[in-house]
Amino acid sequence: PPEDVRAASQSGDDRVYFNVGGVVFQTLEATIKHLRNKKFKLTDPDFLSRYYDYGRREYFFDRDPEVFRSVLNYWRTGRLHLPASMCGPQLKEELDFWGLREVDIEPCCWNSFNQSMQTVTSLKQLEIDRNPSYMHPTEEMSDTTNTSRLCHVARLHLWNLLTDPSYSKAAKIYAYVSLVFVLLAIFSFCASTHKLFDISDGSSNLTNSGSENSQDININISANHSKLHQKPTTTSTPNINLQKHWQDSFSSRIHPALFFIDIICLVFFTVEYLVKFICASPRCQFVTSITAVIDLLAILPDYLELLLYLFAPELLVKENTGIIDFMPFLRLMRAFRIFRLIRRVPGLWIMMYTLRASFKELSLMLVFLLVGTLLFASIIFFVDDPKIFTSIPHGFWWAIVTMTTVGYGDMAPVTAWGQIVGSVTAICGVLIVGFTIPSLVNNFITYYNHIEFVVQKERLLKILA
Amino acid sequence: PPEDVRAASQSGDDRVYFNVGGVVFQTLEATIKHLRNKKFKLTDPDFLSRYYDYGRREYFFDRDPEVFRSVLNYWRTGRLHLPASMCGPQLKEELDFWGLREVDIEPCCWNSFNQSMQTVTSLKQLEIDRNPSYMHPTEEMSDTTNTSRLCHVARLHLWNLLTDPSYSKAAKIYAYVSLVFVLLAIFSFCASTHKLFDISDGSSNLTNSGSENSQDININISANHSKLHQKPTTTSTPNINLQKHWQDSFSSRIHPALFFIDIICLVFFTVEYLVKFICASPRCQFVTSITAVIDLLAILPDYLELLLYLFAPELLVKENTGIIDFMPFLRLMRAFRIFRLIRRVPGLWIMMYTLRASFKELSLMLVFLLVGTLLFASIIFFVDDPKIFTSIPHGFWWAIVTMTTVGYGDMAPVTAWGQIVGSVTAICGVLIVGFTIPSLVNNFITYYNHIEFVVQKERLLKILA
Amino acid sequence: PPEDVRAASQSGDDRVYFNVGGVVFQTLEATIKHLRNKKFKLTDPDFLSRYYDYGRREYFFDRDPEVFRSVLNYWRTGRLHLPASMCGPQLKEELDFWGLREVDIEPCCWNSFNQSMQTVTSLKQLEIDRNPSYMHPTEEMSDTTNTSRLCHVARLHLWNLLTDPSYSKAAKIYAYVSLVFVLLAIFSFCASTHKLFDISDGSSNLTNSGSENSQDININISANHSKLHQKPTTTSTPNINLQKHWQDSFSSRIHPALFFIDIICLVFFTVEYLVKFICASPRCQFVTSITAVIDLLAILPDYLELLLYLFAPELLVKENTGIIDFMPFLRLMRAFRIFRLIRRVPGLWIMMYTLRASFKELSLMLVFLLVGTLLFASIIFFVDDPKIFTSIPHGFWWAIVTMTTVGYGDMAPVTAWGQIVGSVTAICGVLIVGFTIPSLVNNFITYYNHIEFVVQKERLLKILA
Amino acid sequence: PPEDVRAASQSGDDRVYFNVGGVVFQTLEATIKHLRNKKFKLTDPDFLSRYYDYGRREYFFDRDPEVFRSVLNYWRTGRLHLPASMCGPQLKEELDFWGLREVDIEPCCWNSFNQSMQTVTSLKQLEIDRNPSYMHPTEEMSDTTNTSRLCHVARLHLWNLLTDPSYSKAAKIYAYVSLVFVLLAIFSFCASTHKLFDISDGSSNLTNSGSENSQDININISANHSKLHQKPTTTSTPNINLQKHWQDSFSSRIHPALFFIDIICLVFFTVEYLVKFICASPRCQFVTSITAVIDLLAILPDYLELLLYLFAPELLVKENTGIIDFMPFLRLMRAFRIFRLIRRVPGLWIMMYTLRASFKELSLMLVFLLVGTLLFASIIFFVDDPKIFTSIPHGFWWAIVTMTTVGYGDMAPVTAWGQIVGSVTAICGVLIVGFTIPSLVNNFITYYNHIEFVVQKERLLKILA
Ligand SMILES: [K+]
Ligand SMILES: [K+]
Repeated sequence: PPEDVRAASQSGDDRVYFNVGGVVFQTLEATIKHLRNKKFKLTDPDFLSRYYDYGRREYFFDRDPEVFRSVLNYWRTGRLHLPASMCGPQLKEELDFWGLREVDIEPCCWNSFNQSMQTVTSLKQLEIDRNPSYMHPTEEMSDTTNTSRLCHVARLHLWNLLTDPSYSKAAKIYAYVSLVFVLLAIFSFCASTHKLFDISDGSSNLTNSGSENSQDININISANHSKLHQKPTTTSTPNINLQKHWQDSFSSRIHPALFFIDIICLVFFTVEYLVKFICASPRCQFVTSITAVIDLLAILPDYLELLLYLFAPELLVKENTGIIDFMPFLRLMRAFRIFRLIRRVPGLWIMMYTLRASFKELSLMLVFLLVGTLLFASIIFFVDDPKIFTSIPHGFWWAIVTMTTVGYGDMAPVTAWGQIVGSVTAICGVLIVGFTIPSLVNNFITYYNHIEFVVQKERLLKILA
Repeated sequence: PPEDVRAASQSGDDRVYFNVGGVVFQTLEATIKHLRNKKFKLTDPDFLSRYYDYGRREYFFDRDPEVFRSVLNYWRTGRLHLPASMCGPQLKEELDFWGLREVDIEPCCWNSFNQSMQTVTSLKQLEIDRNPSYMHPTEEMSDTTNTSRLCHVARLHLWNLLTDPSYSKAAKIYAYVSLVFVLLAIFSFCASTHKLFDISDGSSNLTNSGSENSQDININISANHSKLHQKPTTTSTPNINLQKHWQDSFSSRIHPALFFIDIICLVFFTVEYLVKFICASPRCQFVTSITAVIDLLAILPDYLELLLYLFAPELLVKENTGIIDFMPFLRLMRAFRIFRLIRRVPGLWIMMYTLRASFKELSLMLVFLLVGTLLFASIIFFVDDPKIFTSIPHGFWWAIVTMTTVGYGDMAPVTAWGQIVGSVTAICGVLIVGFTIPSLVNNFITYYNHIEFVVQKERLLKILA
Repeated sequence: PPEDVRAASQSGDDRVYFNVGGVVFQTLEATIKHLRNKKFKLTDPDFLSRYYDYGRREYFFDRDPEVFRSVLNYWRTGRLHLPASMCGPQLKEELDFWGLREVDIEPCCWNSFNQSMQTVTSLKQLEIDRNPSYMHPTEEMSDTTNTSRLCHVARLHLWNLLTDPSYSKAAKIYAYVSLVFVLLAIFSFCASTHKLFDISDGSSNLTNSGSENSQDININISANHSKLHQKPTTTSTPNINLQKHWQDSFSSRIHPALFFIDIICLVFFTVEYLVKFICASPRCQFVTSITAVIDLLAILPDYLELLLYLFAPELLVKENTGIIDFMPFLRLMRAFRIFRLIRRVPGLWIMMYTLRASFKELSLMLVFLLVGTLLFASIIFFVDDPKIFTSIPHGFWWAIVTMTTVGYGDMAPVTAWGQIVGSVTAICGVLIVGFTIPSLVNNFITYYNHIEFVVQKERLLKILA
Repeated sequence: PPEDVRAASQSGDDRVYFNVGGVVFQTLEATIKHLRNKKFKLTDPDFLSRYYDYGRREYFFDRDPEVFRSVLNYWRTGRLHLPASMCGPQLKEELDFWGLREVDIEPCCWNSFNQSMQTVTSLKQLEIDRNPSYMHPTEEMSDTTNTSRLCHVARLHLWNLLTDPSYSKAAKIYAYVSLVFVLLAIFSFCASTHKLFDISDGSSNLTNSGSENSQDININISANHSKLHQKPTTTSTPNINLQKHWQDSFSSRIHPALFFIDIICLVFFTVEYLVKFICASPRCQFVTSITAVIDLLAILPDYLELLLYLFAPELLVKENTGIIDFMPFLRLMRAFRIFRLIRRVPGLWIMMYTLRASFKELSLMLVFLLVGTLLFASIIFFVDDPKIFTSIPHGFWWAIVTMTTVGYGDMAPVTAWGQIVGSVTAICGVLIVGFTIPSLVNNFITYYNHIEFVVQKERLLKILA
């Protein structure tokens, strides 16, 4: 019918002219009338009449013509398709002018539009996250005393020096010095566990090596490393060994060089934290910020250990004490100093933001992996050798190792059915990883490019100014 | 020749004017005449004459000008290229108007057009799958009794409460409660196989551990785990162990806490299934639906086991009975409760749909892997140590483990030729996975975005309404 | 200068009008004159004058306006940028009309244009490969005898029946029957190596198992599977075993079921080959075609073995004969029957074409892997334990296993430097695979889509006809 | 307000006409006036007036209309969005004309523009790197003697013959000959470490094999290969073995065939280097170029070893000498000859350039991997068996092997917490690799395509010339 209507009305006088930014669109009255049931700006006579140019007998809109083409097609067909070569925010603006809503867009075009808009939204969030209010202490000029003002300016300068490497040359140098201290602290932390820095007296060393050469070490090797899950009763021996190991590790004195590095770093980070605390304008906001909490968590274990070492060394060596179980956790907390790197290396905190912004995709991937783990661990438990897959929870490890295609080989199915399940597990793992990585990657690249854009823009504006 | 024709006819009076939505296209009569052997709307004089505007001496079409540009080029050159920036459905509509078929499109442009159209088709299928008819019990108002109508409304409400989390607040809460029960049931299922929840009396435990510390266990370890394929004669010992293991596992009483959880979950899922069965309008359609079958399959094994446990416990402990071989299968069926998660986590059933929609790509990947497995298992069998690769079927496991790059290391070629074959296998595996994953991924992302679109659209329409 | 020139010449009368398919482009005489040093059609006065419309005082070209925009910009600036939304062949055609060559395109736009053109070229090659001339025996109607003509038609029908599943219903059924025979032959081939189908008499079996339980098998296990490279002297024992293994394998009679399947398949494939040979029109072309050679290679070993089995069975059991070394190779050739699948599964031969068309990318990947293997095997040999990495060629295996991230664990660096080299190897492997897979994947997807297009087009044309 | 302003001013006479290359854009005076606070060419009355055509009462710009659409929209809305279908350099040129800077572009459009521009920049750098000045010795015609000129031409020819395979047929042949020599040298290097080419006298061989069959070798196997980290005291034995191994390796005479190949290759590369040195025009630049340094580094170790072998063979066999520690390093340097391949295989040096150009992305990936290694090695050390994870540095190896999903299995967590950490490590590894590979890949493909473009362009131009 519409075709007939149009064909019949080819008298030529019922054409409507839309001049949009110089481009003249023509349509028929019949077309316009025939879809007035959908409501948007162009179906509103008041809106139209405001833009009517009586002299030239056309509607004149001072807008971009490209989007109007889509809008006019919407009027003609009732379906809103968008030009693919236009970016989301621009489209949004034009659609707003024409009174069209996001829900009017057809599914086939909505996707790229929505993605573009989501990116813009998440980048705005990224900008807010990057520049929290406590990072830029505002100048409270309420008090008139000169000293206070001077003090405030000094605080402001000091704050920027410590936190913004692009603030000045000195700030840049400070950033590098700070990075060196972080790396030093991490080095000390790692090295302290290595035998090269083990200065426990020779006799213990000799005993240790002696016992290792003895018969029982061979038993241990065959028991622990023959890729077999340990039965509860056999683990008793390793447990004793483990306890002894920890004792040895704590009773051994720290290497003087590392101790020195530790002390130096501790002083540096303590001073840094205190200066920042003093300079931060809304202090409570600073203290509760993630970076400050991480900094504190990275300092505290050292102080705690130092206190124990200085005032209660007997707690570190005495057996059968609760403190001995507490120590590994304390030491583990020292690993928090690695997180300090995140604040200092741009790529790392962009990745943090990416992971937070990609929370949905990431949790989807984890759910997939979890369900896969559950499923395949259950199945393998029933179809394969129960000597290898002793329980379903134990099978989780095998399933996850297989799905990530790491495949240590400490557990591997040996029956035909088990191997079929194993094959399916590996293929599913490959699929899951392949499915979810690309969406995560896109987020990261978007974020990374945006940060690059902001940095480059600031630099260019500085140069131009 | 055509160039000469055109050049010769530059008198200016034989131009034809096409006004398409305001944009005036000009071409020469000669051009139009010279390709009349191809049939489409514009070569039909009746069609053309209907759109001729005698006043302005031009053809006026109230259509989008962008596609007409392609159509006119088709008329000029006989080759139909499409604008890349236009989405499939819009192109389809316009091509239909101009009487052009899909087969007229050039191969270079057909691909993106076809992909776009396929996506639209598969998304429509997805919508149908998501909203089966039994999910929306229609109101059969034929009977006039008031009670029946009231009952019907109640059923409708109850049905929506149980199945559509976006129906109301209560439905959302119910969805979370239901998820908790599913997770509880899975936890119980997994935990029941772990030694922590093993309450078999100490004596058996002692015997078990005692035997493990004894001489023969060492033999078992070396026999089973030395990464060697078991010879038929040596498997006899593990077989006895396996049988004993299963006996122990079944004779051991279930931990009271897990038993309690199992009973609670069983009651919950039974009630849920019954209520759904009562509320579902065409009941036979509900019963045969996949979700209902899975729900039933997840309940039945528990009842079966419960019946056996209550009325025929001797079947569970008696040796040499058929039932003992049947039990692992029964227990394996309990793993079906993991599938319940799929209905409750959106990402999971989108993945299910993706896998179903990507059946062609998936089967292609599996065929590739299968052929690779066959080929490389055959070759490695002949070129490597027959002690490791005892038969071609046994080599399948090695081939698939290598091609997915899992590489457990339980089988690895040791001869030079075997290692060359192994290298080729690994590279082929990497290629196969790399070849087929991207097409699958695209499907998933499309589906996922579409569901997002639908959900967002529904939410926006609710807000706007 | 050009800006001044243009600005100065704003008298309005020196404008040149190009009407390209209805779109009027305007430029200044000065602009046109100022770049006459570059030669193409528009700089040729003869060409221009042919298209001049004296009535309307404009040049009229009955071409697509979009490309002319680029051409005009080339005239203005001397740099040829192409519209991104247009496909290669269309661009090529338009550029040819305007007398512009591929080398005139700017590097930034050349890439997508070139890729588009290369795809078109390789798809044309694919079409030629898919439809070799011998596949469509032409009707030689030179001889007038009726019998000969009838015979020819029969041959044509038979040929299509055997080779083109889309020819008729019968052809489709034949294709499936043929596939079943291929799968049967493969099954028989794989199963014959499995112990389930081993019907060697009990005594030999007993001896075998007895020897395995004996002392020496333990030595073998520790020697072969302790993940240590075999020293030359120790391999002598396995060699003897290996020889004995092969003897056993050949002296053992084939399982009657498998023997029956083998004979049936052999007959089927022989008949199929002969019929095809008779029907093929230029017979020499058929015989030398890849598919026919594979078919022959898959049949021959069976006949050879059969002949040996029937007429010279003593060759199969006699020790110290040359034939015994020849046998594994003969058996390996039986694996050729797997290649038969390729002709019968569309995905597989598309992959073959992809691999051939991606020869450049594939060889690049292999060169990368080879150089990486060479480099890292050399380095690891010098920095790690020479007991594990006994020679550089031996290190190749480790390097390739690490670079493909398979990581069997049969060889792994143990020294600190070795582990650093190992880390670099793994990262390089990940990079190499990541670098080269995407370009290969694109080729495959293009090919696969094209075949889909051709198949769909043929089906649609059949329906429409 | 702006909407009202525009609507109110619909008198029709205040329209401004911009004719850009034939396309007439119309806007309102009010729109133009209302955003005069932003400064660019169009807001400059002088600039505008220069382009005003008084006859036609319009501004006429002889530019591309597509970009002007964006520029006009910028004027209207204050936001600069760019057309997606236009390539960077073209946009840049147009924006420069309109006086718009990169910082004016909106973030949503900046990304693709910036990427396009960066690609152009890096490709220019690639061209400079590929054609260093010393590669094209310029003709210094200052001296008038005929001999000198002749000599110069000869040098030029010789230089091109040796370095540019596309220079002539002879140059191409030379390139292949050179490649064969490189491959020969690499083969000799690899083969010399293999036992097949070991010609040490039988007695030593016998002793060797005898000792291997003896008791102590079994101890070694269990000590080294039982996937256990070696304790410091136990490594003493391997150390002795290692030393003895190197002694054996060096005292053994080189196989005459390999010795002959080595000498031939050495002569060839020496002559090649000398000829190049003579022909290179600015010799100091040649000597310090990377390729020349690599060539020299690949020759020197051979000469050094030869000298030692000829004049001080006792240094090679004497125990407890410093030279013995120096030898592995010397031999390792022979691996440099592998780098010679890079100069001769185009794909390889393109990859080198890619890696250099992708320095930022690559270092980001390495930082990610490093931080992940640090973090997970620290955590696993505290939560898993200290017998396996003896120290944090030792855990690095496990972490990197897990994150690259190689998973040798020489170290694997055995406790529940350790396995949870291991799972997280594997997933993080997959994420890190997935995050950073795509950006690297894009660079490589861009570079690779560009080189293809250049090569093809040169070939086409040669054909056309
Ligand atoms: K692996
Ligand atoms: K592995």
